[in-house]
Amino acid sequence: MPPLPSPVSSPNRAADLPDPVRRKLADHFGQRFSCGDSIRLQHGRDESVHEPALPDGIVMAHSTGEVVLVIGLCAQHGVPVIAYGVGSSVEGHVLAPSGGISLDLSGMNRIVAIHADDGDAVVEAGVTRKQLNDALKGSGLFFPIDPGADATLGGMAATRASGTNAVRYGTMRDNVLATTTVLADGRVMKTGGRARKSSAGYDLTRLLVGSEGTLGIMTELTLKLYPIPEAISAAVCTFPSIDSAVQTVIQTIQLGVPMARIELLDALSLRAINLFSKTTLAEAPTLFFEFHGSPTGVNEQAQTVQAIAGELGGTHFAWATRPEDRSRLWQARHDAYFACLQLKPGCRCFPTDVCVPISRLAECIAATNEDIVRVNIPIALFGHVGDGNFHLVVLVDRDNPRDMAEAAWISERVVERAIAMEGTCTGEHGIGLGKRKYLVPEHGAVAVDIMRALKTALDPQNLLNPGKILPGR
Amino acid sequence: MPPLPSPVSSPNRAADLPDPVRRKLADHFGQRFSCGDSIRLQHGRDESVHEPALPDGIVMAHSTGEVVLVIGLCAQHGVPVIAYGVGSSVEGHVLAPSGGISLDLSGMNRIVAIHADDGDAVVEAGVTRKQLNDALKGSGLFFPIDPGADATLGGMAATRASGTNAVRYGTMRDNVLATTTVLADGRVMKTGGRARKSSAGYDLTRLLVGSEGTLGIMTELTLKLYPIPEAISAAVCTFPSIDSAVQTVIQTIQLGVPMARIELLDALSLRAINLFSKTTLAEAPTLFFEFHGSPTGVNEQAQTVQAIAGELGGTHFAWATRPEDRSRLWQARHDAYFACLQLKPGCRCFPTDVCVPISRLAECIAATNEDIVRVNIPIALFGHVGDGNFHLVVLVDRDNPRDMAEAAWISERVVERAIAMEGTCTGEHGIGLGKRKYLVPEHGAVAVDIMRALKTALDPQNLLNPGKILPGR
Repeated sequence: MPPLPSPVSSPNRAADLPDPVRRKLADHFGQRFSCGDSIRLQHGRDESVHEPALPDGIVMAHSTGEVVLVIGLCAQHGVPVIAYGVGSSVEGHVLAPSGGISLDLSGMNRIVAIHADDGDAVVEAGVTRKQLNDALKGSGLFFPIDPGADATLGGMAATRASGTNAVRYGTMRDNVLATTTVLADGRVMKTGGRARKSSAGYDLTRLLVGSEGTLGIMTELTLKLYPIPEAISAAVCTFPSIDSAVQTVIQTIQLGVPMARIELLDALSLRAINLFSKTTLAEAPTLFFEFHGSPTGVNEQAQTVQAIAGELGGTHFAWATRPEDRSRLWQARHDAYFACLQLKPGCRCFPTDVCVPISRLAECIAATNEDIVRVNIPIALFGHVGDGNFHLVVLVDRDNPRDMAEAAWISERVVERAIAMEGTCTGEHGIGLGKRKYLVPEHGAVAVDIMRALKTALDPQNLLNPGKILPGR
Repeated sequence: MPPLPSPVSSPNRAADLPDPVRRKLADHFGQRFSCGDSIRLQHGRDESVHEPALPDGIVMAHSTGEVVLVIGLCAQHGVPVIAYGVGSSVEGHVLAPSGGISLDLSGMNRIVAIHADDGDAVVEAGVTRKQLNDALKGSGLFFPIDPGADATLGGMAATRASGTNAVRYGTMRDNVLATTTVLADGRVMKTGGRARKSSAGYDLTRLLVGSEGTLGIMTELTLKLYPIPEAISAAVCTFPSIDSAVQTVIQTIQLGVPMARIELLDALSLRAINLFSKTTLAEAPTLFFEFHGSPTGVNEQAQTVQAIAGELGGTHFAWATRPEDRSRLWQARHDAYFACLQLKPGCRCFPTDVCVPISRLAECIAATNEDIVRVNIPIALFGHVGDGNFHLVVLVDRDNPRDMAEAAWISERVVERAIAMEGTCTGEHGIGLGKRKYLVPEHGAVAVDIMRALKTALDPQNLLNPGKILPGR
């Protein structure tokens, strides 16, 4: 049996904002500033297994100017500031282990500009990905990045999120052209621009994307948009084993088929989806595909993939070409996380998320499945395997130390395995609180020292989302 | 007539390395350390109009360990270190205005690993792009980034280079997965990894790409490779005006046609190419295209583009499908820079390189052409217009103040115009010495302050390529 590691925990704090901060925030924000218990609890926890850690107060900001005001005031009084979108992150990113202000940007939800001719949009950080795509209806364009949850685009940028379309369209790293960012000292910085490429100086935009609110708070983003493909086709295919499904993915990617989506789900995920979404999909290892292109291009791609899958034992290739059928299919895929949670009522998810070079993917998943059979808790496996990225949805009763120990063990094993295979401890969730201990094993002590130097250079008081990403702060 | 600006100049220095540095370098490197005048001159100038500024000595490093040795020694004695590849940069990047050691990495030219299954390669920084592609022969893979010159991959990463394929395959920003970098204090840092995506901490790789050797010296890179497309087809099409050619580009990009290359050359560029490459292309505004995909996909793309071009007055659509014809065509395109230099024997090029949102490209080029007719020096215009990126090859006699004044005037006008159009002062050349004054106009004072803070955090002694990128240092 696996050894018992120490459980995940984050300290809870009483509200204790300095009086001048409390007074000035109340004066300016009125009811948009609150220290109530329920709103503090709502902002002090996330979708995962982390113990809640409450901020001292919440501010609902409506403009970059208001973010400047809050950060300036907090800097003056040494109060931490944690940016908050919709709270859909899963590594404790929005928790407030040192208290402070949770700066809720969900009210900054204006779409500032859609430049259809240039294929970009300027949005405030609180706009969600679905809101943006709704606003793009009729323009012939779409924004592809979809981490499942209808997260804010600011939050997605902060965690360098990706999702099912990343294999074709990249991650937030590739799709944020520019930002407006409020720095730790309250200054407003513009980074990047609307040109498609630039060699003008240090890439501050990329430094902010993935910095989890620790180097600055992004209040506005310029995002790349893409023409809606002339033809889109989706399919589901069942496999006799996880390995045959993964081999199909590897061969497809190595052939250079420009997949838009290629997703693996294991049998348990399919069972959960069927229960949750009232679908009747085969409860076996399954690939979900989506093809984008011209009608003939999509047809060619589909034939190629179907041939590969067929040789590897794939059966029941079921197509969804009508938009409503495709939507239902992908909604079922996106619901996989919540569907899995229903497998064990009252449980929480201990999330894991690793990414490896694709040549190691089959081996990594096989070894992980050998671990899964050694524990008692239910664990579903699915992911964006075209990138070599997969998740474990590890279901635990947070009050059961045995569950927590098993979850921690399995998570540590898969992360250490991914790092040993030249992969990463997180493909898309971020470090937050949960993965700080893997930063040095993955990047080495020198790189982490440099990350720390950057943090100190940009936030010398350590007030922006303190305690996140960097170990030992 | 345009006003006379001050001419570009960089001070020249006598060799004056501290004795212990000279002695230790001679001991370790023998003939690979030199302070000879001719090698100092070779390393103290670039392809452009900048006055040479000589380093005090040159070291030919053969390993990361040797780079550590040189940087450590120089840090101890306050001696600047400038990384050098093949000297093909054009904004004074490799010049040594504060003297110091030019650290020549061209001997670090080992291809460390080709991971065909994962589509990546690990190379030392001195490997050139052609060398890598030669090594990939037979693997079914290629490395697409081609800035024209056969630059080193380290140099290309340092300037965030791109070139003709960027419209499809991105720039060095998108294609460096990982680096080994020697820091200013001599420590060796690993950044990134071989996973296709990661959310694990600050994106140090992207911070280094485009940092022009001022934050660290990259000695090893892991690069993305791509499957060679099943079908490739190239074409040339002549237009009645620059504007009709540019409109063809804009409509093609807005339709989402996945062009591999789409290049504009003006009539003067074509004349230069014909003279230099003994070709008989029409001396008129011309687009060079390349299509990558399946045979039917390439055919579809070509038909779409031909239809757009035809509606806009494009004529003489000439195809090159055989590899040798395509190579000849692209060699002619790549020779455009050197071909233009031959238009005025003994001249130098005053380079410009701007990039604007594509909706502004026609307007930007038209206004630039109005400036071009106001000066006496020959100016050719060509570029990677699918990205909104174009160059002026401004030919000057460096000893003629009137030429230099006209060149500076036209360069300033086009850069200010690009910035006013939400574009960038450099799409792919970098800042070097030549474009420092545009950094604040483009990014604003706060962003440049933050760039300075990053430089100070990583190189507190200001010894890595001092004087480059940041204004006023």
